[in-house]
Amino acid sequence: MKIDLSKIGTEQQNKNTMHIDTLETEAMIRLINQEDQAVIDAVGAAVPQIAKAVDAIYETILNGGRLVYIGAGTSGRLGVLDASEVLPTFGMGEEAVVGLIAGGDVALRHPVEAAEDNETIVVEDLKRINFNENDILCAIASSGRTPYCVGGLKYARSLNAKTISLACVADSVIAQYADYPIEAVVGQEVVTGSTRMKSGSATKMVLNMLSTGAMIKYGKVYGNLMVDVKTSNAKLVERAKGIIMKATGVDYDRAAYLLDASGNHVKTAIVMQETDTTQAEAKALLEANEDRIALAIANRG
Amino acid sequence: MKIDLSKIGTEQQNKNTMHIDTLETEAMIRLINQEDQAVIDAVGAAVPQIAKAVDAIYETILNGGRLVYIGAGTSGRLGVLDASEVLPTFGMGEEAVVGLIAGGDVALRHPVEAAEDNETIVVEDLKRINFNENDILCAIASSGRTPYCVGGLKYARSLNAKTISLACVADSVIAQYADYPIEAVVGQEVVTGSTRMKSGSATKMVLNMLSTGAMIKYGKVYGNLMVDVKTSNAKLVERAKGIIMKATGVDYDRAAYLLDASGNHVKTAIVMQETDTTQAEAKALLEANEDRIALAIANRG
Repeated sequence: MKIDLSKIGTEQQNKNTMHIDTLETEAMIRLINQEDQAVIDAVGAAVPQIAKAVDAIYETILNGGRLVYIGAGTSGRLGVLDASEVLPTFGMGEEAVVGLIAGGDVALRHPVEAAEDNETIVVEDLKRINFNENDILCAIASSGRTPYCVGGLKYARSLNAKTISLACVADSVIAQYADYPIEAVVGQEVVTGSTRMKSGSATKMVLNMLSTGAMIKYGKVYGNLMVDVKTSNAKLVERAKGIIMKATGVDYDRAAYLLDASGNHVKTAIVMQETDTTQAEAKALLEANEDRIALAIANRG
Repeated sequence: MKIDLSKIGTEQQNKNTMHIDTLETEAMIRLINQEDQAVIDAVGAAVPQIAKAVDAIYETILNGGRLVYIGAGTSGRLGVLDASEVLPTFGMGEEAVVGLIAGGDVALRHPVEAAEDNETIVVEDLKRINFNENDILCAIASSGRTPYCVGGLKYARSLNAKTISLACVADSVIAQYADYPIEAVVGQEVVTGSTRMKSGSATKMVLNMLSTGAMIKYGKVYGNLMVDVKTSNAKLVERAKGIIMKATGVDYDRAAYLLDASGNHVKTAIVMQETDTTQAEAKALLEANEDRIALAIANRG
């Protein structure tokens, strides 16, 4: 197959950076920063598309399905990165968000990029995690045409699963196979074809929006406080106490007591404080109220 | 140790997003995009710091040393991500840029975050890759205080190796141990303490600048064209032909011929075309001219 990359926006030469190799270092870095402004603007223009995808992801997770990212190279790594952050951030793991990368996990560190040129390997990868019609697939390809992504989208559609595409070009191929296409059109890269730069940064921001947005809607956030934080290291334990302090207005020592008395469970600790209940009573209140703090407090006996 | 996270900028509550959980989805995503503008501004303010670090990295690589990223959680993953992109983008591998993450490679996908609370594990990790005084260490910590990073910086200094710190707060702890401190101060996160968001995006952009800037200075880029691209998959083969076309003005068929005749080596192909030489002659010209195309062409017989 002869692919005409000259028609792909991210592969075109950037007139602003034609002589970047001749600049003094500070001017070179300043130019990259100026080009990065396009990332914010491109993602901003895609906000309505992103919001529709967030709603679809929320419904999927609410119904027990998963958000599954697929991609090759940098796009795949960013999908895995976003998925890996959901557990420490929101206390949900692979039951909610999964990342797959073309070539398997060795590709997280080393290029296995021939894997991306194939539409069938992805089907095996998706079968291995039992991808099914209750899940939603998000295929990420800066160029908008990675065969690994096209194959994944076709397979997901064949199962009647919902599909999202995320490209950094207009009129992307993957959008043709997506119920919720997203195109963050960042324009030519600083170094020609180097989609790890503006496209990579735009991808990072959009994925943050997809998973964070869905989790906010799912009730993992109370105000702007994450209330399902894990306490698996010293920093996270301190963060948990801080959340209890901010959410309830108690002091540090009381927050530390509540965290301990709750069995290291922030949501329980907040409900214990706000409803003057024991750990068991607070947990029962949460269970009876969709696991949402505001409802548990409002509906206490 | 009682860590007072309330003093760390990324852990403070963002007044703009206090009620993000009550917004309609599109307004919620729009708000995140507006907050992301701070990423560009924060990185922009750090450009002089970043440029100094780029110069230090360039000198290190020129002298046969390596850039070694260390970090925990999202910061560590972004370091590994940046390192993994250097081979497919610039044709250089772990001899130039290495990424280490607290907890080892399992942490690329799963949180092993207790590992970050320790200043000594990192020393073992650095010894394992034979980190030495010829290398430069770049410690990445959004909060500016991750013990894994502090320990790594102390160890690097004990070897008289050069050190860079990258934090997303002002007055970071890690800056105290760095020859080249970088602080991209993004302000409060959209969801309190969620440094995967603005801090993560800023980190991605700064790392892009560090490795890309050093590689441009090292001569991997000709104009704004990467001329050491690998040809390990169909997309990269097409990209290689496109680079030859853009650099020399030849048509597609001639570029395909040159790529083949050069042994799939873009720099050789460009020199062959511009100096009307064979593969062997072009390779000799490059070898005699610091492996730089412009010099090879200028100094042909």
